[in-house]
Amino acid sequence: MKGQAFHCNHSQLDFTIFDHLVNLKVLFSLGHHPSGSVPLKIGSEAVGNLPHHGKLGAIAGYGVARILDSSNPNFKKGMPGHTAYVGFYEVCSPKKGETIFISAASGAVGQLVGQFAKLFGCYVVGSAGSKEKVDLLKNKFGFDEAFNYKEEHDLNSALKRYFPSGIDIYFENVGGKMLDAVLLNMRLRGRIAVCGMISQYNLEEPEGVQNLLCVISKQIRMEGFIVSDYYHLYPKFVEMVLPLIKEGKITYVEDLANGLESAPSALIGLFSGRNVGKQVVVVDPE
Amino acid sequence: MKGQAFHCNHSQLDFTIFDHLVNLKVLFSLGHHPSGSVPLKIGSEAVGNLPHHGKLGAIAGYGVARILDSSNPNFKKGMPGHTAYVGFYEVCSPKKGETIFISAASGAVGQLVGQFAKLFGCYVVGSAGSKEKVDLLKNKFGFDEAFNYKEEHDLNSALKRYFPSGIDIYFENVGGKMLDAVLLNMRLRGRIAVCGMISQYNLEEPEGVQNLLCVISKQIRMEGFIVSDYYHLYPKFVEMVLPLIKEGKITYVEDLANGLESAPSALIGLFSGRNVGKQVVVVDPE
Repeated sequence: MKGQAFHCNHSQLDFTIFDHLVNLKVLFSLGHHPSGSVPLKIGSEAVGNLPHHGKLGAIAGYGVARILDSSNPNFKKGMPGHTAYVGFYEVCSPKKGETIFISAASGAVGQLVGQFAKLFGCYVVGSAGSKEKVDLLKNKFGFDEAFNYKEEHDLNSALKRYFPSGIDIYFENVGGKMLDAVLLNMRLRGRIAVCGMISQYNLEEPEGVQNLLCVISKQIRMEGFIVSDYYHLYPKFVEMVLPLIKEGKITYVEDLANGLESAPSALIGLFSGRNVGKQVVVVDPE
Repeated sequence: MKGQAFHCNHSQLDFTIFDHLVNLKVLFSLGHHPSGSVPLKIGSEAVGNLPHHGKLGAIAGYGVARILDSSNPNFKKGMPGHTAYVGFYEVCSPKKGETIFISAASGAVGQLVGQFAKLFGCYVVGSAGSKEKVDLLKNKFGFDEAFNYKEEHDLNSALKRYFPSGIDIYFENVGGKMLDAVLLNMRLRGRIAVCGMISQYNLEEPEGVQNLLCVISKQIRMEGFIVSDYYHLYPKFVEMVLPLIKEGKITYVEDLANGLESAPSALIGLFSGRNVGKQVVVVDPE
């Protein structure tokens, strides 16, 4: 088997390989998905990149990038790309000209949501945790604006600065204080697609969100979603995204860590936002 | 002018009259609606019971009961009844056989949601704050089960007792700790219709809701709504509800307080749950 790599999620290390062979030998698995999929056992045989809800649920994570190369239909389930696609087009119910805010925007999903939203005709602002990531959002992914949330003492003021007339759509990846600030800045009939709350996963007690009264006064719809519920839309996603990638209208960044020994720190790094884009651990580049 | 009464909401005293005259002299107004309607000025002339978003937004509050008597189309906007109707049928997306939990269930809206849900074929449980109200829910309104939340030390356990397989639909009237407990007990793809959060309105700092991670893992849709957005459905509501009331399949309870001097305490009483059903202040019973 050649070209092995692990793709890291907040809840698992995803196992996959670069050259798209179908039968993988799973060397180890770490963690399991909160939706209750079956974690892989060490040493079990598996077919790569199945959806979360499948029998071998811990295998997932192929990025949009891989679609281009794949000749095997089993490898067409690009998890972050498809998550961005269904989250934006299906859950957010976007309209041209609306404003969208994306947290953890340089992450595997966020960077694609922002690009989809720009192509759709939205005003797009993202937050991330470093100057490097903010530059990436503005210069590589074409966001209208981006800011470093770690440099903002008052998230509410930061959002008011970038959204003087409020936010129509929030693509939620982090939860906690950011969600509280966003709620104050949502517009009437806003939509919040809840994709992740990575700031909360490792807390012993989650932060309390205090501004839920805004859900009533602003008639907000807040909806949690998991990509595995939307695999029937996969052909539509591929049909839309492939030409965009070929034309260079959609781009992506992955974060490659080298060597199996780097896997644990790569996984831990996700929670402090060390990665830029999809975290991949390259075990054997050949 | 004969038969004056004020209808109390959490955010306003609604002015209306029993005999459905159209031209009212507004004696005073108290509070204004959080959605930003125009509060009535003391001494202004008004047409009764307009929707919240109208020019005279502070006038609202006619209950289902009044529809039967009214010959004036201006008085057909039964706010609690219509709120229950759109909240249940439109926002909750109910399916036959699903389980529904209603907080503040003996209130003006809750009592009707429960009856609609029973007629629709749901398993219906409500919470209220006294033995009297719990009896009302079970014996007058036909709820499957009801409990006194003030007697429960652990709301999570209480909900597990009544919903061993979880809650499909939560009709949210109170917020705070109850919402937190409900989130833990929601089923996959559950829906939360957020109609009110009365436990939070008078707090200096709202309670933090900690279990929002469930929104992702259970793919919950949470949606705030305001009845004034749904007045186009009013004819459908009347068409459905009138025969049900005439056949005795839908019933209601109002809480009458006597005399203008009782208005302030009736309004304050809403926040401690003193009222049973729609709070009405009868100023002049003739």
